[in-house]
Amino acid sequence: MTDTTVAVDVEAAVLDVCRRAKVASRELATATRITKDAALHAMADGLVAQSARIIAANAIDVAREREGGMSPGLLDRLTLTEARLATIADALRFLASLPDPVGEIKRGSTLPNGIRLIQKAVPMGVVGMIYEARPNVTVDAAGLALKSGNAAVLRGGSAARECNEVLIAVLQDALESVGLPRDAVQSIDAYGREGAKVLMHARGLVDVLVPRGGRDLIQTVVRESTVPAIETGEGNCHVYLDASAPLQRSIDIVLNSKTHRVGVCNAAETLLVHKDAEDKLPAVLEALHLAGVTLHCDEAAADLAPDNVPTVRATEEDWATEYLSMDLAVKIVDNIDAAIEHIRRYSTGHTEAIVTEDIGAADHFVKHLDSAAIMVNASTRFTDGGEFGLGAEIGISTQKLHARGPMGLAELTTTTWVAYGDGHTRA
Amino acid sequence: MTDTTVAVDVEAAVLDVCRRAKVASRELATATRITKDAALHAMADGLVAQSARIIAANAIDVAREREGGMSPGLLDRLTLTEARLATIADALRFLASLPDPVGEIKRGSTLPNGIRLIQKAVPMGVVGMIYEARPNVTVDAAGLALKSGNAAVLRGGSAARECNEVLIAVLQDALESVGLPRDAVQSIDAYGREGAKVLMHARGLVDVLVPRGGRDLIQTVVRESTVPAIETGEGNCHVYLDASAPLQRSIDIVLNSKTHRVGVCNAAETLLVHKDAEDKLPAVLEALHLAGVTLHCDEAAADLAPDNVPTVRATEEDWATEYLSMDLAVKIVDNIDAAIEHIRRYSTGHTEAIVTEDIGAADHFVKHLDSAAIMVNASTRFTDGGEFGLGAEIGISTQKLHARGPMGLAELTTTTWVAYGDGHTRA
Repeated sequence: MTDTTVAVDVEAAVLDVCRRAKVASRELATATRITKDAALHAMADGLVAQSARIIAANAIDVAREREGGMSPGLLDRLTLTEARLATIADALRFLASLPDPVGEIKRGSTLPNGIRLIQKAVPMGVVGMIYEARPNVTVDAAGLALKSGNAAVLRGGSAARECNEVLIAVLQDALESVGLPRDAVQSIDAYGREGAKVLMHARGLVDVLVPRGGRDLIQTVVRESTVPAIETGEGNCHVYLDASAPLQRSIDIVLNSKTHRVGVCNAAETLLVHKDAEDKLPAVLEALHLAGVTLHCDEAAADLAPDNVPTVRATEEDWATEYLSMDLAVKIVDNIDAAIEHIRRYSTGHTEAIVTEDIGAADHFVKHLDSAAIMVNASTRFTDGGEFGLGAEIGISTQKLHARGPMGLAELTTTTWVAYGDGHTRA
Repeated sequence: MTDTTVAVDVEAAVLDVCRRAKVASRELATATRITKDAALHAMADGLVAQSARIIAANAIDVAREREGGMSPGLLDRLTLTEARLATIADALRFLASLPDPVGEIKRGSTLPNGIRLIQKAVPMGVVGMIYEARPNVTVDAAGLALKSGNAAVLRGGSAARECNEVLIAVLQDALESVGLPRDAVQSIDAYGREGAKVLMHARGLVDVLVPRGGRDLIQTVVRESTVPAIETGEGNCHVYLDASAPLQRSIDIVLNSKTHRVGVCNAAETLLVHKDAEDKLPAVLEALHLAGVTLHCDEAAADLAPDNVPTVRATEEDWATEYLSMDLAVKIVDNIDAAIEHIRRYSTGHTEAIVTEDIGAADHFVKHLDSAAIMVNASTRFTDGGEFGLGAEIGISTQKLHARGPMGLAELTTTTWVAYGDGHTRA
């Protein structure tokens, strides 16, 4: 068998999966909330009932990847336990408790000619998800797609393939048990990277593609996909201490933004300090140091570090780095506009925070930045679907089209205009 | 000079235009409505004051293209007159009368922890527009971008280049006269097709690309662009006469949908008739024939045509064709589901209409179709930003991401979340 033959086979197979998803999506689109919630509960129950089988499959993946040299951190994310499965099942039950995003009337009016016009939320159709070796995302993505009335085509990492295969079967059984089509949740893991490429070009069959994972994965999807994709998750977030920043509040917000959880996109990566707030910096740096943070300081900031606080000299690269670790870049700026310039230059447009007592400075900061979220006197960690009250979170969009910031179920819907006349024609 | 050198020069030049647009966009984003509306009025006044110069430049374009064999229809669209310029100027003044889409609060709440959260509309930043040889679109696009607080990078057809150059200069003078940056409206016409390609790949500098024109242009942008693009304008629209469709209403809606204006995307291209409404078809076909419509009928429909009404036999190609002319495909279907199947297969997802007296049939039609707009007992021609009360219209989106159906100024904005705390940290 030649390479070309393989490619053609993969293309045909993946497109067939997408076509079946499209057919299934029509049933999903008109399914009532009662049916969709019953499916979510059946999925949760199935995961618990089949936990031994799921964990056994997962153990094969974990053993193979450990053998292959996967890092302990990634191995941990790959590993399922009874307790983790129970948490995953609970997340499905929570999804069932959320309102149905489908059918919500977004706008409406009676036109001057008497036509009654409504714009209502409808499912996208087929949602493609490409993600890395985390079996929980398989369940999460399937649940989010289902609740929003969409069929899902999933491409997980090959490192989780044994487990994903079992998970998909359990989810499909649950769909069938409530009379929904099995094709509403399908995997293309069997078709490898080639299959993922076909998915990215299945324009017309797949309505939106949501990559979930690291920078490389997301950039590949954004660059290659002809299916509309939503860019998520890269966060080079900043905290700016304004001239009027109070000391304790500065320490609280900087510490929380940096150290509350370091591997997430809404963690702070750079601290900017107005030169008139320099007197607060030694205490802030000391608190960060005691929390275990490595401080990458420009010369002015380094000069202000107490003797017991070691620093490393920041380079150009530090300003642009999303560390995702206990590291923080620190820089003194001449004024708020210099802070804004720095952020505009290096930010990924995720979240920026200002600590200030000056209402004018807060307004200026909000007005002149161009990021998905701006925090005034609050930690960057609040940019989160759960914290924002959106219920579920699909990801955090750093693009401007369709969705920006935390995306909930509503962002997996589109709209239809419906006009009711009684024989209206245009004059 | 080699081809490579040219390409590199074009790339640098177009990216420089985009970069200057990005800088200008920051001023536009914070400009008040008063300033933006003053600019729109200055633009309108400028077009009228400079009409002789604009029309002289246009005459050069028209003469060159007539020489080159441009069709009379396209020549007409290319031609500017005093009256047409006055209409274009009036459209700018109308834009000034519309509410500012920037700053609108979309959602907001006080979170359980006391953080005050708002989601507000902000400009996209830099909007790219690629369109064909219609000088009115240059002004229209510049005005829409300005009102929504965006900088615009315009790529018009080379056939309108002399005129566009003068128009851009007039628009830039108007911007300058109210203190806004000239770079807020720029053209890359000088860089030809190569320049358009650079624009499509200026991800990070250009925030959204809106192609306006024919199918080929739009498909090229959708396929090639790494800048997020909005697919617009292709409309293979259907009218379905249900079993209960009343005769006069059927005639009115079919005639209006087909013949009111044939070259537009919301004109009907296929008529589907329930077999139980066959008795109405002869009168409907006769009315269409008298209006000058060529009828492409399947066998069953052709058999029902009166003797004085000629028909041509429809082929598979007819069902998929957006005629944009006085042609209509006609087909008899067994039931409403057969109509829905046909529409799902051939529609471009723009607009479909049902004529019926049966509330169940209307609901079924709305529920099972997947198009941007569904008309119940109204002409397909109503899918229009003006008719829907959106004020201005940028185009009609046939994609599902970001905007669907008629797009107004609001669709040229994105959102920012702003959270106000008083030292909030995440527990």
